[in-house]
Amino acid sequence: MPTISRKGQQMPQSPIRKLVPFAEEATKEGKTIYYLNIGQPDIKTPQIALDAVKTHSLEVLAYTRSEGSEEYRRKIANYYKKHHINLSHNDIIVTTGGSEALLFAFGSIMDTDDEIIIPEPFYANYNGFSTASGVKVVPVISKIEDNFALPPIEEFEKLITPRTKAILICNPGNPTGYLYSKEEIKKLAHIVKKHNLFLIADEVYREFAYDGNTHYSVMQEEGLEEHAIMIDSVSKRYSMCGARIGCIVSKNKALIQTALKFAQARLSPPTLAQIASEAALETPQSYFDAVIEEYVERRNTLISELQKIEGVKVANPKGAFYCIAELPVKNSDAFAQWLLEHFDVDGETVMVAPAGGFYSTPGVGLNQIRIAYVLKKESLIKAVNIIKEALKVYKD
Amino acid sequence: MPTISRKGQQMPQSPIRKLVPFAEEATKEGKTIYYLNIGQPDIKTPQIALDAVKTHSLEVLAYTRSEGSEEYRRKIANYYKKHHINLSHNDIIVTTGGSEALLFAFGSIMDTDDEIIIPEPFYANYNGFSTASGVKVVPVISKIEDNFALPPIEEFEKLITPRTKAILICNPGNPTGYLYSKEEIKKLAHIVKKHNLFLIADEVYREFAYDGNTHYSVMQEEGLEEHAIMIDSVSKRYSMCGARIGCIVSKNKALIQTALKFAQARLSPPTLAQIASEAALETPQSYFDAVIEEYVERRNTLISELQKIEGVKVANPKGAFYCIAELPVKNSDAFAQWLLEHFDVDGETVMVAPAGGFYSTPGVGLNQIRIAYVLKKESLIKAVNIIKEALKVYKD
Repeated sequence: MPTISRKGQQMPQSPIRKLVPFAEEATKEGKTIYYLNIGQPDIKTPQIALDAVKTHSLEVLAYTRSEGSEEYRRKIANYYKKHHINLSHNDIIVTTGGSEALLFAFGSIMDTDDEIIIPEPFYANYNGFSTASGVKVVPVISKIEDNFALPPIEEFEKLITPRTKAILICNPGNPTGYLYSKEEIKKLAHIVKKHNLFLIADEVYREFAYDGNTHYSVMQEEGLEEHAIMIDSVSKRYSMCGARIGCIVSKNKALIQTALKFAQARLSPPTLAQIASEAALETPQSYFDAVIEEYVERRNTLISELQKIEGVKVANPKGAFYCIAELPVKNSDAFAQWLLEHFDVDGETVMVAPAGGFYSTPGVGLNQIRIAYVLKKESLIKAVNIIKEALKVYKD
Repeated sequence: MPTISRKGQQMPQSPIRKLVPFAEEATKEGKTIYYLNIGQPDIKTPQIALDAVKTHSLEVLAYTRSEGSEEYRRKIANYYKKHHINLSHNDIIVTTGGSEALLFAFGSIMDTDDEIIIPEPFYANYNGFSTASGVKVVPVISKIEDNFALPPIEEFEKLITPRTKAILICNPGNPTGYLYSKEEIKKLAHIVKKHNLFLIADEVYREFAYDGNTHYSVMQEEGLEEHAIMIDSVSKRYSMCGARIGCIVSKNKALIQTALKFAQARLSPPTLAQIASEAALETPQSYFDAVIEEYVERRNTLISELQKIEGVKVANPKGAFYCIAELPVKNSDAFAQWLLEHFDVDGETVMVAPAGGFYSTPGVGLNQIRIAYVLKKESLIKAVNIIKEALKVYKD
C-alpha cells in the first residue's frame, strides 16, 4: 500500500471535533446535548445577507476575480475606515474563510522548518495550518492566573532564532477571550520591527469587545505597515460561519502580491457567499448592539455560574465568546468524553472542548476546557449545572 | 523589511491571468475581446441549482460537517453509481472546489522534495499546488504530433525514483482535451501497483467525452482501490465555477482519514454552494445532452477554422473544452500580449492563454496556445479569424 506523508500523519485532530462520534452516540441514546464545544453561534444571520442570495439574478454561477471583486473589496475598505483602519482595496485579498487567509499568510512568509511564535493557549487550527505548511510553532505560555495577558516581552525575545519569521496573535483571543491593550500591541510592534518579523493578527472577533474596552488593530499602528498582516472573516461578525468568506490584509505590497499567487492557483473565493458577505456590510449598528448585549449577558452568566463551583478556576474574558476554565480533574479529555458517554442530568448532558489541543506544549492545559458561550442564558445555566453535578461524581 | 518565503517567490503566475492587465487596458481603449483564455463557460447554470439557494429557509448560515453533509455525500455516491463507479459516501470528502481536493491529496501523500510525475502539458495550477506543497513536478512529455496520447509507459518508469509518490493525470485533459482510453488507464494502474504509488485522476470533465467515446474512471479499475485518488468538481459539469464545490474520493481509508484532518483544520466547505450543488445533482439528462451537442459543434467549428490557417497545427480533442494549437510564432506569450495591445479587426481582438505555463519543462510549448471553446460558434469563428489576420502581420 502506498504511504501517507509524514505531515499527514502529524496533522493534529481538531479538539472540537474528536468527540463528535461520542456525541452522535449520546444523541442516539436519546440524550440532549448542550454544544459548548464549537464556535458556532445560535445568533441569526442578518436578514439582508440571506436575502441577497435569494434575489440575485445570476444565470451563470461564474468565478469572481481571485482576489475578490473590486466592488466588494472597496466596501470592505470602507468598513475598516469606520474602525479607524485606513487602507486601500488593493491591500485586501478576499479568501475562503479566515482559514485560507492564514494558509496564504503562512505560505507567503514561511518555508519548511521556519518558526512562528504564538502565545498559547491558541486557536487549535493554528497547529493544523502549521503542520500542513511544515512550519514549527514556538509557544510562549500565557497563564490563566494572569487572565491570559500578553507574556512579558522578554519571553518572546528569548525564543527568537534565525528561523523565526513571525509572531501570531488572536485578538480578541480564541480560546481565551483575551483582548490585547494598545500598549501590548505597541510592545509587539516594537519587537517585530527590531527583529524584522511579521506580526500576524487574527482579528475575526473585532466587534466582540466588552466592558467599554475598544479593540486596537495592528493595522492602526503607525510604522508597522511592512510587518502587519491582518486575518479577518465574516464568520463570527455576522453569524455566517458557513459562508467561508474572509480576507488577508496588509500594506506590505510584496506580501499581498505573493498571497495573490496562492489565490490565483485556487481560482476564486465562493461567489454566492461573496454576494451574501457584501450585503452583510449593510447590517445596521442595532444588530451588533443587540448581539454584544446578548454576549455580555451570556458571559456574565457563564462566569458567575462557573465561579460557584468549588475547585473551578476561570479567566474573565473581555472579548470574543470563549472562556478557558480549569477543572478539578486530571484529564479534561477523558472527562469530556465521559460527560457524553456516561453522564446526564434528566437526560441532558454537555459537550465541551478539552483545552489540551489549544496548547502545543505537551502536558499543559490538560485540566482545562474551552467553553464557547454560543447558547442562550438559560441553556448556559443548565449546562454549567450539569458540569457541576458531574464533577461531584467524576473520578479520574 | 521582513522577507517573503522561498516558495512564495517561486509560486508561478497563472498563465490564464497574467495577461489580465493588458485585457483591461484594451477594454478601456474600446476594444471588444473574445475571452478564449479561461475555462469559464457561457453555458447557463441549471435553474434547479440556482433556485435551491433562493428558496432555502436558513436562519443561521452555519458550518456544515468538515467532510460535507452526509445527505449530500450519499447523493454524490448515487451520482457515481450512474457512471459505473461503486463507492460509499464514506469514501468522499466534499472540498472547496477541485483545487482544495488537489491540495488535500498533495498534503496527504507528499512531503517536501517528494516527486509527482505528470504528463505535460498539464493544468497550469498543478505547478502552483506543487510549489505551495514543496513538491517537485517531474514531467513526462506528451506530443501534439501524437494528439497528446499517454507517453510510452517506459518513459514513466525511467522517471520513478525513491521520492516518487504519485502519477497525476487529468482525464479528459485540460489543456489538451485528450481522453484516456481504458487501456491507457490499465497501463497506469499496472505501473502504480508495481512501484507502490498513488494514481491521482482529475476527472472534473467526466461528462465532456465526445464522438461516442466513454470515459473510464480510475475508480472503475479493479485492484486499484488503495492507489486511486479521484479529484472532482461541480464547476464545469453544471457551469458552476463560482460555487467552489468539489470532492476528493478514494477507497484508501488511511488516505481519506488523513485528508479529513486537513478538512477539519479549515472547518467546512461553503454551505450555500453545497445547497446549490446538492440540487444540481437533479439536473435532467437533457441538460447534458444539449451541452455536449453544443460543445461538439463548437469544437468542430474551432478545429476546422484553425486548420484553415497556414502554419497552424492543432490536436483534435476528444473531451473537455480546450485545445492546444501550435502557431507559426516564436513566443506565444508575446503574441498574446500583442493581440491585446496592438491588434484588432474592426475593434475586436482575442485573448488566449500562452501554453508555456502548461509545461514545467523550460522552453517547451513556447509556440503553443491553449484555446478554451467556451463561447458561441459565431464568436469562435470571429475569434479564429482575428488570429488568422494577426498572424499575417505579426513579426516576432
